[in-house]
Amino acid sequence: MPDPTGTADLLAALSLEEKAALVSGRGAWDTAAYERLGIASITLTDGPHGLRLAADEEGTGEFSLSNAVPATCFPTASALGSSWDPDLIARVGEALGAEARASGVGVLLGPGVNIKRSPLCGRNFEYFSEDPVLTGRLGAALVGGVQSKGVGACVKHFAANNQETERLRVSAQVDERTLREIYLPAFEHIVTTEQPAAIMAAYNRVNGVYATQNRMLLTEVLREEWGFQGAVVSDWGAVADPIAAISAGLNLEMPGTHGVSARRIVEAVKSGALDEAALDRAVAGVLRLVQSVPHTRDGADKVDFARHHALARQAAAESAVLLKNENSILPFDPEAQLSIAVIGDFAHEPRYQGAGSSLVNATRVENALDAMTGIAGRSVTVTYARGFTQAQDEREPELHAAAVATAAAADVAVLFLGLPAGDESEGYDRTHIDLPQDQIRLLEDVAAVNPRVVVVLANGGVVRTSTWEQHASAILEGWLAGQAGGAAIADLLFGKANPSGRLAETVPLRLEDTPAYLNFPGTTDSVLYGERIYVGYRHYDAKTLPVSYPFGHGLSYTTFAYSDLRASVEGEGDDVRIRVSLTLANSGTRAGKEVVQLYVGDPIAGVDRPARELKAFAKVELAPGESRDLEFELGARDLSYFDASEHRWILEAGEFELSVGASSRDLRLCETVTVDAPPRARRLSLDSTVGEWLADPVGAPVLISTLSGTGSSFQNPEIQRMVAQVPLGRLVTLTGGRIDAAKLDRLIAITSPDTPSR
Amino acid sequence: MPDPTGTADLLAALSLEEKAALVSGRGAWDTAAYERLGIASITLTDGPHGLRLAADEEGTGEFSLSNAVPATCFPTASALGSSWDPDLIARVGEALGAEARASGVGVLLGPGVNIKRSPLCGRNFEYFSEDPVLTGRLGAALVGGVQSKGVGACVKHFAANNQETERLRVSAQVDERTLREIYLPAFEHIVTTEQPAAIMAAYNRVNGVYATQNRMLLTEVLREEWGFQGAVVSDWGAVADPIAAISAGLNLEMPGTHGVSARRIVEAVKSGALDEAALDRAVAGVLRLVQSVPHTRDGADKVDFARHHALARQAAAESAVLLKNENSILPFDPEAQLSIAVIGDFAHEPRYQGAGSSLVNATRVENALDAMTGIAGRSVTVTYARGFTQAQDEREPELHAAAVATAAAADVAVLFLGLPAGDESEGYDRTHIDLPQDQIRLLEDVAAVNPRVVVVLANGGVVRTSTWEQHASAILEGWLAGQAGGAAIADLLFGKANPSGRLAETVPLRLEDTPAYLNFPGTTDSVLYGERIYVGYRHYDAKTLPVSYPFGHGLSYTTFAYSDLRASVEGEGDDVRIRVSLTLANSGTRAGKEVVQLYVGDPIAGVDRPARELKAFAKVELAPGESRDLEFELGARDLSYFDASEHRWILEAGEFELSVGASSRDLRLCETVTVDAPPRARRLSLDSTVGEWLADPVGAPVLISTLSGTGSSFQNPEIQRMVAQVPLGRLVTLTGGRIDAAKLDRLIAITSPDTPSR
Repeated sequence: MPDPTGTADLLAALSLEEKAALVSGRGAWDTAAYERLGIASITLTDGPHGLRLAADEEGTGEFSLSNAVPATCFPTASALGSSWDPDLIARVGEALGAEARASGVGVLLGPGVNIKRSPLCGRNFEYFSEDPVLTGRLGAALVGGVQSKGVGACVKHFAANNQETERLRVSAQVDERTLREIYLPAFEHIVTTEQPAAIMAAYNRVNGVYATQNRMLLTEVLREEWGFQGAVVSDWGAVADPIAAISAGLNLEMPGTHGVSARRIVEAVKSGALDEAALDRAVAGVLRLVQSVPHTRDGADKVDFARHHALARQAAAESAVLLKNENSILPFDPEAQLSIAVIGDFAHEPRYQGAGSSLVNATRVENALDAMTGIAGRSVTVTYARGFTQAQDEREPELHAAAVATAAAADVAVLFLGLPAGDESEGYDRTHIDLPQDQIRLLEDVAAVNPRVVVVLANGGVVRTSTWEQHASAILEGWLAGQAGGAAIADLLFGKANPSGRLAETVPLRLEDTPAYLNFPGTTDSVLYGERIYVGYRHYDAKTLPVSYPFGHGLSYTTFAYSDLRASVEGEGDDVRIRVSLTLANSGTRAGKEVVQLYVGDPIAGVDRPARELKAFAKVELAPGESRDLEFELGARDLSYFDASEHRWILEAGEFELSVGASSRDLRLCETVTVDAPPRARRLSLDSTVGEWLADPVGAPVLISTLSGTGSSFQNPEIQRMVAQVPLGRLVTLTGGRIDAAKLDRLIAITSPDTPSR
Repeated sequence: MPDPTGTADLLAALSLEEKAALVSGRGAWDTAAYERLGIASITLTDGPHGLRLAADEEGTGEFSLSNAVPATCFPTASALGSSWDPDLIARVGEALGAEARASGVGVLLGPGVNIKRSPLCGRNFEYFSEDPVLTGRLGAALVGGVQSKGVGACVKHFAANNQETERLRVSAQVDERTLREIYLPAFEHIVTTEQPAAIMAAYNRVNGVYATQNRMLLTEVLREEWGFQGAVVSDWGAVADPIAAISAGLNLEMPGTHGVSARRIVEAVKSGALDEAALDRAVAGVLRLVQSVPHTRDGADKVDFARHHALARQAAAESAVLLKNENSILPFDPEAQLSIAVIGDFAHEPRYQGAGSSLVNATRVENALDAMTGIAGRSVTVTYARGFTQAQDEREPELHAAAVATAAAADVAVLFLGLPAGDESEGYDRTHIDLPQDQIRLLEDVAAVNPRVVVVLANGGVVRTSTWEQHASAILEGWLAGQAGGAAIADLLFGKANPSGRLAETVPLRLEDTPAYLNFPGTTDSVLYGERIYVGYRHYDAKTLPVSYPFGHGLSYTTFAYSDLRASVEGEGDDVRIRVSLTLANSGTRAGKEVVQLYVGDPIAGVDRPARELKAFAKVELAPGESRDLEFELGARDLSYFDASEHRWILEAGEFELSVGASSRDLRLCETVTVDAPPRARRLSLDSTVGEWLADPVGAPVLISTLSGTGSSFQNPEIQRMVAQVPLGRLVTLTGGRIDAAKLDRLIAITSPDTPSR
């Protein structure tokens, strides 16, 4: 039997039919295998915060939604995103990779790095953030961790898959600048820094073309611009036309189609409708993928599930965000004389992950109630009342009354509130961002009998707090915290861990304030990204809208002091390097972690730009009294915007504002730097306005002297202002030849740069 | 000399060169003439609120921006729009037509019926409203008035010309539904009810194609759908490519290009690049226009300028909006013992019209100070202090101090504030909506010494009031009120006239709240209409945003009572007729006019729709104690939305909310009607989702039985929910032929209507 390992040899050895069979899956989760050529089948399976591998090993082609092998359920992406901690997330990635490898999984389908355009997206719990830089950094960390174990990561969903409604048909109508500045950079960062084994092409269309058939995305941007070397895999069932998909740059259609697609591909190659070279390119990508990832089990018994559970507990603790903590009601002293009423179904029955493709069969689950009882010293009494049931939105009078009575009898009440599981899932979008009314009523009634109330939240997507937060002295946003989330919450409540999560998504005052409110989710056909680049805090800042809690916000049990911000600029233009340094000190009495955030703004720019954009951050742990010098480096891209008419990033010379702080609205230090860049090479033409000609140092005097010679009154500034917006060519026509077009052509030659600006 | 009058004869008699010369102008304002054929030259000139005819009769081709013949300057469109009075505006139109006819003008370039998308549009003073129904009704009235004198009206600027920035290059990126529901209906109403002699094609591009070269707009929509019979004239200098323009449906390029365009057209016909039939169509339109409008002077001495001035005074009085009137501080009793401090440069030097193409050389101008002195009885003393100068934004200490002292010495202070002329004009956009800071400071200082303050405003576009209105007991928004505006203000202040203007544009709390805030004015290339249909009050209502003064608002010196709202439905579907009746009573002690507004909402609809939309209104004059029964009739279109995928208006069966009130946020009566419409003929296909199939009364049972026979678990409701969004064709592929495609084709034949839905 031959044993060719080069893809060229394999391609030559494969028949057309075999090649066609390789670019669509075999069954639900696997690829085709050819033993005679040593081409193994690999398994691609969910998911981003825990392995979801069908326990049924036969691969019959049915989607197995339950019955998965046990795996560690880590916090979901909306939680991990709030950790702002690439190192932590890399360790989670390593654990995921180890569990996948042990089970013989070749490619893990994650992370999901779509931007949270609207809080209503039902799948936001699987995404990190509303910010592309934060998303890209954290996504890259997860990919790096997974791939360090030899398992491939499949970054999803590429691109502009920001809603569940009509996700198989809707076209995201999004302008190029917005794509480049908001929806693509996370993918770009991950591809250029981590070379993920695979990228998943999304269900939706982008500007009319299915993502799976989108040559601009899959070939021009992904491979030609970013240098992606991996395989493009379709989302499950996302291929409308396999011929168009292969032509556009897709490698692998998933799941299998029982040979339907392969037959169509063979026919298309034979009829000439599909270039066999395109098929070969697709096959080569699949072959490289198959050869580079595991295809056999490495022994599940080798996985240290106890260590992974501990990691899940740490990750959950790092991800929880202390939104509010009046009078330092938290943390509780485990040795104090204290009675705590624990209230709410979520305390005993945690909601710790979302529904859909990422549903993990957790190895074990800890609840907060048991964990709190375990931590509490002997002087602390913990009572519990269920208060409500998660499944329904109606008040259950007996549970409600018992909970209020329990709260009244205690020193402090800790309410575990959250979204019912049915409120958020893959497959459909949310219709509101409110907690169930019965839970809010319970909070109100508890607060009426006990002024010391702590709320702990369990939710994947963001929930509104403005309607009820006045009843709570403290709010701890726990997200969907994974299988050890309950223990992590207990650690935080009793100060065994110090909260260090920061919001990766703004908590708005109301749904109507959110960026995409009047455009989301569009119609059957299309959804307009009318808010453009103003997503998340970019929107609230641009409109100076108040919010409940801003992007980047999160409290600690200690305090931090910022000082000595310095910024120095080296080089210019594309080579510019800005070094930013500052000193951070723990000015409180407990060890803790701060997330230092660096935002950049360009107040005077040739286009509208956000007031500030996150460009760098660091999570720093400091002992009480300890201080540390931090340094960030920024490059040209961090200062640039994407020009849609020139299809490139533009760095404009001038002043940039650097702000460092503890949230997007808690900026502690600010510095302005001046950056040099070569003047923009504008190509003056007959389409350029008179105003643009007059603004050009070379063009202006020549134009004025040329036109003045025609007998027109062009030297009059009033006349110049009047025609400033008129394209020069139009002026030539209007003056009927009194301006000499040939002379203008010579003018254009003089003023234009030698090379076109694009 | 032959005297052919039929256009066919004339076309045959004209050479190619002559035809080409006829479709572009001769000089700045005239068309070409051929005496031998009896084809006269006609003059087309500005403008919408007063004739602006160059006094220089030679037509040398230079644009004459000053030196116009004297004409009556009526209030600008933003004022007239606030009258909500089609009868009044028709009389203004008649006066404009009479003055134009007397001067031998064939076509008056107006009205401007663009929708106020952003308050920053520099030309908003020339537009009526943020609402398409109000704009259409008022524009039609002006056209009817002008054309009743034989003069043609040229409705402008077609279409989506909603900004001045980059107006010659920018492309309005606007989806079809938004075009049809917001930006086109005013044109449509005017064309279908008044057949204006001409429509002016705008400078800008619409979805990438210049309006002057836009076949969809100029031919498909305007002529084929709406039945327009007149001529399409370019905005001055708006033609980028005369060949493309003629092909698309333009009739006349203005101004003349000294033969340049004609030569290009001749060459294009000869080379075959331009179909001569297209040129003939364009020429025929010009010939019909030339033959249907005046081309000789009818004697300017026949114009009754005194009567027109009186009409201008009445129009200004009807257009002013009393925004606020605490403690009924207005009107002043002209016979009372009262000292009035009149303060502000605008009282003596009124700003009564805007800059740009509509600048009129007024026959006379009355200022408010003189008019107030004239009306005031002997017991009233009127003092005056200039306070500030209009031209500059800096405080002038002496003027300021003198004004404060004058105010301190009087019983009441009337401050005449407004926008400097440089703040708004054709040709550039505004950058803010604030009054100059020195004027606000003056108001604050005056209010500190005299608690009885009335503010009278002079501005074309809307100004923000929220930063200063607490200092004024009353605010009278006078707009740019034309040459008799000063007298009208005096009439209103002393109660000789009762305010009856209503806001045709929302006064927002702040610029950041306005619908297009983050998209206006876009880049050099394009501007995204990202707010879609949510323009004006549609936006504030959809976001439940507070505003300073809502659309439709305006106070009176009397009060009105609404009662007995009744609504009856006749017919169904496209033939539905809804009769709405109510009783309006003057419940106060003065004669006055109320603007009764009827809004329609469709709370449960297949697409997102505005909470309410103005569909009818009536301005009603009632004596004290008088009451009147009013009736409105609505048709299918008033209840419909435009479906962009089917490219047609859709009336959905169901409940509609009818609200009647004194403003969009002062709804006095509400009624719900149920309308029948045939069920929408949906064509089920393989692109239809499983959910759509299951929602179809015919499709559902057939599909379920078909799929259940395949051995799949399709009868399981969980499975059905999971695949609800999957297009059926995709499911067929995924199940690999276990669903029989041929069987599905038969299914589709069964369930689909005989005729396609489009």
